[in-house]
Amino acid sequence: MTSRKLVECVPNVSAGRDEDKIAAMAEAIRAVPGVYLLDIQSDPDHNRTVFTFVGPAEPVVEAALRLAELAVKLIDLRAHRGEHPRMGALDVLPFVPVRGVTMGDCVMLARNAGAQIWERFGVPVYLYAEAATRPERQDLAEIRKGEFEGFFEKIRRREWAPDFGDPVVHPTAGVCAVGAREFLIAYNVNLGTSELRVAKEIAKAVRGSSGGLRYVKALGLELQGRGIVQVSMNLTDFRKTPIARVTELVRREAQRFGVPVVGTEIVGLVPEEALLEAAAYYLGLENYSPDIVLERKLAQAIES
Amino acid sequence: MTSRKLVECVPNVSAGRDEDKIAAMAEAIRAVPGVYLLDIQSDPDHNRTVFTFVGPAEPVVEAALRLAELAVKLIDLRAHRGEHPRMGALDVLPFVPVRGVTMGDCVMLARNAGAQIWERFGVPVYLYAEAATRPERQDLAEIRKGEFEGFFEKIRRREWAPDFGDPVVHPTAGVCAVGAREFLIAYNVNLGTSELRVAKEIAKAVRGSSGGLRYVKALGLELQGRGIVQVSMNLTDFRKTPIARVTELVRREAQRFGVPVVGTEIVGLVPEEALLEAAAYYLGLENYSPDIVLERKLAQAIES
Repeated sequence: MTSRKLVECVPNVSAGRDEDKIAAMAEAIRAVPGVYLLDIQSDPDHNRTVFTFVGPAEPVVEAALRLAELAVKLIDLRAHRGEHPRMGALDVLPFVPVRGVTMGDCVMLARNAGAQIWERFGVPVYLYAEAATRPERQDLAEIRKGEFEGFFEKIRRREWAPDFGDPVVHPTAGVCAVGAREFLIAYNVNLGTSELRVAKEIAKAVRGSSGGLRYVKALGLELQGRGIVQVSMNLTDFRKTPIARVTELVRREAQRFGVPVVGTEIVGLVPEEALLEAAAYYLGLENYSPDIVLERKLAQAIES
Repeated sequence: MTSRKLVECVPNVSAGRDEDKIAAMAEAIRAVPGVYLLDIQSDPDHNRTVFTFVGPAEPVVEAALRLAELAVKLIDLRAHRGEHPRMGALDVLPFVPVRGVTMGDCVMLARNAGAQIWERFGVPVYLYAEAATRPERQDLAEIRKGEFEGFFEKIRRREWAPDFGDPVVHPTAGVCAVGAREFLIAYNVNLGTSELRVAKEIAKAVRGSSGGLRYVKALGLELQGRGIVQVSMNLTDFRKTPIARVTELVRREAQRFGVPVVGTEIVGLVPEEALLEAAAYYLGLENYSPDIVLERKLAQAIES
């Protein structure tokens, strides 16, 4: 396969409608040798695009900076409208350890990229999640509160001084959050009812912030096209809060309302390991380890 | 990765307790350049070891023959006792197409290896599964019926004349089945009871031969070391009879006896796809395809 050291980068930019701009940004990422652009998810309602790319650390940072440069050039937040909250042209830039790389390595990459985004493009940077310099900056939603329009005031408050840059919002590109985090699985459970209240109650029961599972964020939503509701989740550490346990807890809570789980969906990508662990959980494998997987064994044998 | 053409070979030998013998046989396989020994599973209750190795066709056959030679030398079936039925020192030798190789290629390898096992080591050979020369020899269990002890009589019957060799059982190494087949998952479900009858009834309910699932072979066994019983299965086509459905059917049948499933185990290796499909089955993923798996996406991106 490829080199053992892999970092994932999942920048969110504030453009989800102009296909030429999205294509240009994708091309800037692809142009960096060693970087693989795996996924592009544009949402016109959110007016936002999520790029997913992987590679060794250096080219991944290089691709992130080329994207930042282009996003600052192409996107004018003064004219941006969309359902998703946002504060920057390049709104958020997380680095994620995938293989042979530690969280500490990714924190270093975030600091390095953040410093350059200020120095080269004049966009103030906040470090968030594992790269945060203060507890209240761990949560991206806390940083983003007020959005682009509110930052002209917020940035002047001492507690919201940027980690890199002067306390002056870039006039068209706003500010940017750069961080390091675990792989995030976007996972939805669909319920056989049209009652939004049920989804909201279950979301509240399972999410960490209100007493549920530590690494689950959850919202109750209506799926209007289908006449059902959904528990929409982010699993922020699938090793400590595995997808199977989350699913079973949602199922159990739904039973209290006499509501069935009618299906689930993964949005974007999921690491192989998360699904292999789910299989082991449900099958009840006593001897599970990745070593029982043929493809893993062969790759190991060839490398050694 | 490695060479385009890959054959898997999964010999079963009738020795699962003597570590020196097992180590010597492993070494004989490893000594062949181009061959990767991926797995060794010894079961003292079964008194049996399963080796799994892969490589291009020629070195794989060479490794199989070196193993055959050593098994004949080291193992004396007159003194062999174990839970698993067996008829030879090298009991069974299947060749499995993995990549860039057809089932027809593997049938040729089986014939080639089988001929040499007779000529060089004096062990009569039966061709089985896709390499079988008669319909009643497709099923390994049919061939093995009577086991080592019964073969001294069975081999003299005209319909059980070996495919290679005279109708004379090797006095200590018995006979050997050599074949070609699809990837086989050896999968056991452990039951929370010591009643062998329960395992046997469930095995009968789930196996294809008696009306159960088409690509399941199953036996009820005692696990004496643990005081429990086991449904020991071979899943001979996991795409058509998936591991999750097998597990749930066993669980359901066990409920009829008020017996819990206390665990499961995979013996040897399992293709990644079989576990990913199991995860999708249990989670109820509406949009599952291998494309949602990060590592698959990456491999595709690298290849293209």
